[in-house]
Amino acid sequence: MSEPLNDAALDQLFRTARTYNGYLDRAVSVDQLESIWDLMKMGPTSANALPARLIWCTSTAAKEKLAACAGGANPPKILSAPVSVIIAMDLRFHDHLPDLFPHTDAKSWFDGNDALIQATAFRNSSLQGAYFIMAARALGLDTGPMSGFSPEAVEAAFFPDEPSLKVNFISTLGYGDPNTIFERSPRPEFGRFNRVF
Amino acid sequence: MSEPLNDAALDQLFRTARTYNGYLDRAVSVDQLESIWDLMKMGPTSANALPARLIWCTSTAAKEKLAACAGGANPPKILSAPVSVIIAMDLRFHDHLPDLFPHTDAKSWFDGNDALIQATAFRNSSLQGAYFIMAARALGLDTGPMSGFSPEAVEAAFFPDEPSLKVNFISTLGYGDPNTIFERSPRPEFGRFNRVF
Repeated sequence: MSEPLNDAALDQLFRTARTYNGYLDRAVSVDQLESIWDLMKMGPTSANALPARLIWCTSTAAKEKLAACAGGANPPKILSAPVSVIIAMDLRFHDHLPDLFPHTDAKSWFDGNDALIQATAFRNSSLQGAYFIMAARALGLDTGPMSGFSPEAVEAAFFPDEPSLKVNFISTLGYGDPNTIFERSPRPEFGRFNRVF
Repeated sequence: MSEPLNDAALDQLFRTARTYNGYLDRAVSVDQLESIWDLMKMGPTSANALPARLIWCTSTAAKEKLAACAGGANPPKILSAPVSVIIAMDLRFHDHLPDLFPHTDAKSWFDGNDALIQATAFRNSSLQGAYFIMAARALGLDTGPMSGFSPEAVEAAFFPDEPSLKVNFISTLGYGDPNTIFERSPRPEFGRFNRVF
């Protein structure tokens, strides 16, 4: 039975953690990306389906390719971050279930059921996107998740020959520069969006 | 600039945390539910939209109503857990944006765009569902998320007069009984589902 984490940890994960628009000049290594994955992959997904596929853009060329798919204020954020990440999903995730969920024939639950495939991939790759954000924060890093981009452009640029791969959202990653955050938007009290029966 | 959390915290959040099928005989208070919300509400959502709506079933009557909507092995899990939670989403979330995202007219981005409303509600309420799981773990609690239920039945039972509310997934909550967990399903190495460019 676990105890609550201490206040410093709760702050780092939730209360003082913020979405960053710019980062300090401090590199993020591939080892750190692997450490994020090794935490985030432990988070639960339905039937252990793990539908997320992550594309980590660390080179200038890759970040330029991604920035060209984004709109508004997002291209300079993508270009200047140490790493910019595509959180994608594989609509053929169920091909991996004989290996990832070996004790039953879970692949057959999905074969031919496109609506279930789409909903399961979208829901669970979104869960994994949140685990990515939380794992990065747990490791002392910061993120800047974004929805302002053209999915079709990202898919054409990064997955031209893989029609089963679809982008969910994108994010920057690095050591956040506190000068680049906006004022915290309001967060509602429990009673507004929760009911207890 | 933050440092990585210590190993005990990373274990509690990710590495030794598990999905539980049953719970110890230890109550969870409404104060604890509010503490979960006060952490999870800080996690980022697109335009601070916070589309999730949580229904916390703490009474036997509420758990029985939810269990009647679930299939397979799920009804006894729902009934025996201290709390069973519906993570729902509000397809009218954008009505709250003048208040939650006050510096621009974000409501107008969504008005009349049903596809964007649906995708934004589903993606971001899923993110919030993951924040719920991580916040519960951070507070020393355990969860058992589930997709095996009839969405139509849950919506008819809990939101009969609120057609904008749709269920995303459900979960049990409590102090996990280690005798009720399954063997950990395999988790893939970085190279399998990640690419670095």
